[in-house]
Amino acid sequence: MISKNKIKLLKCLNKKKYRLKQKKAIIEGRRLIDEAINSKVDIETIWFTNDALSLDLNQPLINKIKDSKVLFDELSNDDLDNLSNTENSQGIIAEINISCFLNAELKNINQENILVLDGISDPGNLGTILRTCAWYNIKSIILTSDCVDSFNLKCLRSGMGAHFYFDNIINAERTEVIEFLNSNNYNVFCADLKGKDIRNVKFDGNWAVILGSEAHGLSEDFNIYKKITIEKLGEIESLNASVACGIILDNFIHHQNQ
Amino acid sequence: MISKNKIKLLKCLNKKKYRLKQKKAIIEGRRLIDEAINSKVDIETIWFTNDALSLDLNQPLINKIKDSKVLFDELSNDDLDNLSNTENSQGIIAEINISCFLNAELKNINQENILVLDGISDPGNLGTILRTCAWYNIKSIILTSDCVDSFNLKCLRSGMGAHFYFDNIINAERTEVIEFLNSNNYNVFCADLKGKDIRNVKFDGNWAVILGSEAHGLSEDFNIYKKITIEKLGEIESLNASVACGIILDNFIHHQNQ
Repeated sequence: MISKNKIKLLKCLNKKKYRLKQKKAIIEGRRLIDEAINSKVDIETIWFTNDALSLDLNQPLINKIKDSKVLFDELSNDDLDNLSNTENSQGIIAEINISCFLNAELKNINQENILVLDGISDPGNLGTILRTCAWYNIKSIILTSDCVDSFNLKCLRSGMGAHFYFDNIINAERTEVIEFLNSNNYNVFCADLKGKDIRNVKFDGNWAVILGSEAHGLSEDFNIYKKITIEKLGEIESLNASVACGIILDNFIHHQNQ
Repeated sequence: MISKNKIKLLKCLNKKKYRLKQKKAIIEGRRLIDEAINSKVDIETIWFTNDALSLDLNQPLINKIKDSKVLFDELSNDDLDNLSNTENSQGIIAEINISCFLNAELKNINQENILVLDGISDPGNLGTILRTCAWYNIKSIILTSDCVDSFNLKCLRSGMGAHFYFDNIINAERTEVIEFLNSNNYNVFCADLKGKDIRNVKFDGNWAVILGSEAHGLSEDFNIYKKITIEKLGEIESLNASVACGIILDNFIHHQNQ
């Protein structure tokens, strides 16, 4: 069984500063833990409640855990309630090592198309954006320093395991990002409500798309780059940031240079 | 000032059965109320806290309300806390009449492209889907009876006013939907993880896209229709439903028959 001291340590991981210090994070639920095993994340331990251990639906996951030789243990319903952040917990929770993600640096990015997020503050949006990038096989993403933490529990939940498929989730200052993009000759495009229709953008070489904050849009620092837009046919003011991200990636990846 | 009785009545509108009975709903926040006025929704009354009334940021909205001759009144911070469902309320709340939406029927749909949502259960997803449809000028949407209520407060919030730009938000049984689609000769496509790549789908005439539930996918009843998919390049299992909706609409509207 899990110790009181371990529970105390795990509870601290709800806060960003402890995640950074301990280089650990918590993930919850069948699907997220399954994706973590699939993508060979460094899992410290997985805990199941007694109910979750005996549930038929969980047997494929339990078999997979046994095969992968990841540590697993039991915890009581009370301990789970104390730790869990979801309304309808599935009774499965794990501690993962995130040091490889925290050490990511701009210089690790290797001549590839990338997404830059500038001040995305909603963890649900950030997770959904990571999930969309993972679908389109974008392997590196840059978050400016005013973005919400990507290992926030809500972000992990909406990411549905997307985090684990990235080579680089990099936190950087805007000035560093600009220096990196310019010195690596990226074709840089800022998503905006006004700009060139994404269907008509042409380029050769690698691209970087910058998405701005839900409430405040893009920082002025990025005004040096070309603006692109998704043509609006109706009357509503804007699209959700993660939906806009999906439409832009789909156009850049599937419809470019056709 | 708002009466205690009115507060009691408004609080009931947090529940679907009272919204259906009274044909009313609550909306909150500057942006949502601004979109309601723009789109000429039947607003009963708008209430401001004293702080919200004197805030510079709200003056354009207050002027717009005066011009549009919508009733507005004050409420205390305590009354707002009692009514509000948002963590950081902007101190503005309104009661709207939704009878025109509740009376929507399949026969109102007028030879146009439509979206069918089958069992979408997350109100945030539903609101974001409505917002995406409003961007692409889709005017009619059908919700099977196991979808979350579209006038749920979370759905209204993530919809960002999209609800008000629809001609028809229709709740219907799956058997009725199938009868409607077949008798009106729609080209019907179900979004699925396996199916024909959306870039290669060709058709003449009106289309209907069916999106399934986040957790359970599509009902078997819809297996009679063709399946389409968004090509996956990475390894993650699936896309978020509202992101998938955006990508499919963009392809169907902008890239069809090119």
